Amino acid sequence: MELKQQLTNIAKQARDASRFLLTLSSATKNKVLKKMAQSLLDKKGNILKANKKDIKRAIALRKSAAFIDRLKLNDKRIKEMSDGLMELTKLADPVGRVIKEWVRPNGLKIRKVSTPIGVIAIIYESRPNVTADCIGLCFKSGNSIILRGGSEALDSNISIYQILNSAVKKYGFPEGAVNMVTTSDRRAVDALLKLNDYIDLVIPRGGEGLINRVIKSSRIPVIKHYKGICHVYVDEWADLNMAEKICFNAKVQRPGTCNAMESMLVHKAAAVRFLPGMLKKFKEAGVEVRGCSITQKIVKGFKPALAYKGWFERATEKDYRTEYLDLILSVKVVEDLEEAIRHINYYGSHHSDSIVTENRRNAQEFLKRVDSACVYVNASTRFTDGYQFGLGAEMGISTDKLHARGPMALEELTTYKYMVFGNGQIRE
Amino acid sequence: MELKQQLTNIAKQARDASRFLLTLSSATKNKVLKKMAQSLLDKKGNILKANKKDIKRAIALRKSAAFIDRLKLNDKRIKEMSDGLMELTKLADPVGRVIKEWVRPNGLKIRKVSTPIGVIAIIYESRPNVTADCIGLCFKSGNSIILRGGSEALDSNISIYQILNSAVKKYGFPEGAVNMVTTSDRRAVDALLKLNDYIDLVIPRGGEGLINRVIKSSRIPVIKHYKGICHVYVDEWADLNMAEKICFNAKVQRPGTCNAMESMLVHKAAAVRFLPGMLKKFKEAGVEVRGCSITQKIVKGFKPALAYKGWFERATEKDYRTEYLDLILSVKVVEDLEEAIRHINYYGSHHSDSIVTENRRNAQEFLKRVDSACVYVNASTRFTDGYQFGLGAEMGISTDKLHARGPMALEELTTYKYMVFGNGQIRE
Repeated sequence: MELKQQLTNIAKQARDASRFLLTLSSATKNKVLKKMAQSLLDKKGNILKANKKDIKRAIALRKSAAFIDRLKLNDKRIKEMSDGLMELTKLADPVGRVIKEWVRPNGLKIRKVSTPIGVIAIIYESRPNVTADCIGLCFKSGNSIILRGGSEALDSNISIYQILNSAVKKYGFPEGAVNMVTTSDRRAVDALLKLNDYIDLVIPRGGEGLINRVIKSSRIPVIKHYKGICHVYVDEWADLNMAEKICFNAKVQRPGTCNAMESMLVHKAAAVRFLPGMLKKFKEAGVEVRGCSITQKIVKGFKPALAYKGWFERATEKDYRTEYLDLILSVKVVEDLEEAIRHINYYGSHHSDSIVTENRRNAQEFLKRVDSACVYVNASTRFTDGYQFGLGAEMGISTDKLHARGPMALEELTTYKYMVFGNGQIRE
Repeated sequence: MELKQQLTNIAKQARDASRFLLTLSSATKNKVLKKMAQSLLDKKGNILKANKKDIKRAIALRKSAAFIDRLKLNDKRIKEMSDGLMELTKLADPVGRVIKEWVRPNGLKIRKVSTPIGVIAIIYESRPNVTADCIGLCFKSGNSIILRGGSEALDSNISIYQILNSAVKKYGFPEGAVNMVTTSDRRAVDALLKLNDYIDLVIPRGGEGLINRVIKSSRIPVIKHYKGICHVYVDEWADLNMAEKICFNAKVQRPGTCNAMESMLVHKAAAVRFLPGMLKKFKEAGVEVRGCSITQKIVKGFKPALAYKGWFERATEKDYRTEYLDLILSVKVVEDLEEAIRHINYYGSHHSDSIVTENRRNAQEFLKRVDSACVYVNASTRFTDGYQFGLGAEMGISTDKLHARGPMALEELTTYKYMVFGNGQIRE
């Protein structure tokens, strides 16, 4: 009961503040964001001190080196957080945009206008930079925020939150624009997810386990940034030089990101010409391959220097559903475009998928029928990103279809309302 | 287990069909809709026969006359359903619309295009016309539909469903575009709401009990068409003649609809001039009033002929939260615009609210700060409706903020994807 009351108070306060935030001018919001950015630099010492505590705890808990690296903050990373907030001041205000406007025969003027969503809860895992990013994005879009981070980064998160919140409070805003749930009670997330009377949207940022837990217990609408099982399909009509460059880039340039290629599909008519060279390139780059039977045959034909032990395995069903986030790739030779599309819709995660082809009709078919947020012709999947799209900073890449799909930037952090202007109209 | 399997099969089939529906041309969809419309007229006899069974059961269960009236079908109502389907053929195809298009410095062309959502489940209560309306809207927008209606209208719903589905099948479409869950097992709704792997959106259409049940157990995104506690606020600067006409229309013209006024707020400076005449008008029209203390004083000042017994009561907290859907109105005199806005945001249902004023600043303040789907200046709230807005047929009025807010018409039954056109771009 006490936990519930405590969370309800936070959520109510956030709701009240949201009524105020929606009235702020762009100039005021940018002024506060600049103050936030500066405060992070000014109080760097506090953040690093707090972060040390988290790191110490992580070491004691024998967390992996990769985990600790993600957790760790230093001057450069704090500067990046600060730059991220400054960057937001340069982006257009997403609130108050007239989306559409028209006049009805009875003279009513209807204006569809973007407005803040209200109160957004973010449930996230270890990276502490998420704290600053989310606070900045929600503030710029006029939303109150309730943060619930992972316990591993608790000290860092609290430190960043306090610094940014005191920058907000310096301008005399009501309490509640920026909130953090810091209790160690593990039931806090479930309790928070029941407060649909006060919270408008919850965004989980983390692994599958976290996301599934949120979906199961939330009464608040959820927008998921799920895994990215992205494909490149090399068509029978592909320019194979281009295909090689695109596939290599999609896999190797930054394999740990959600828009990296996890599975490469190749039309059977292109397989023999394309795969040997491509696979050698991948091997040289340290990419392990999980391939179908035809891929295996091709690999077996390689000279001894390319013996497949250690870097090649037969692909299983599970491989086609796996987000490796690493230098590992599943490869499948398909009968035709039809099989490629069905494979992607069945095994993929509806994130980003690309076709390499010079055939216009095949490209159109792929674009239309592949059920993903971003579908590409003759380009790397790695472009699915708010900045690359020219949308600016983003919350993540939504793999959902409702409200936001693909890069979820400032615009997607707003909703709309209809403003209707009359001069006495009544309905007959 | 058997129920779960049965529902999963339906949902999978719907998913498969959705992959096909998104490829249909507007011409094909309209042809099928016309066939549907004609079939309803041709097979009217079957529908009326099925409806008789429902009516008989309802009478045996001693349902109210109003309930039976909503359930009842006749030639006119079937004609209306058919006309509704024909109407859809005249509306623009919401699928394939280019929402935005731009070119990045690296030459990538990005096109944001509307696409169907996929599979939509509708959980609804007694009115059988909902069956035809929803099938038509989902088909036109390229979505598969899974219907789960109330048991009271089961025979009518099955009959309408079968007629429309056989019209679809006549065109050789795969099974699964139009589905109905007809089992009498009451656990079906809960089981359906767990199938988030196959169903993209659930829309509950019915009372608060149904909606709350859906929110509690759904893992699928929900868009709610919740109650309408709509306000008209008569400002200190209102044209009181206009205010009288607007308030009367908003309350009396069709009190059973969600966009009718349930609560009237009056600025204290206008109360003495405005309320006596207004309340007399309401009394003459048979409207019962639940008023605040000031309203009560004014009513007490009426001549004996207007003695308030029977039509006036003091308003309670509960009144301000009640959707009467009837000739009952709560009335409150407020200190100022500020109190009006706070009252609406606190007690309202974020549906439709109107200010009557000649003061531009007050109007702007109201439009900006009232957190409702539709906010009006100097017009009746009764205009919140797909047709009145010029958007055509609608699923309902969303009181949610995510994805669809206000009238949920064809456009809101689509999502979007990004199509990205390159010529070999890779990320540096």
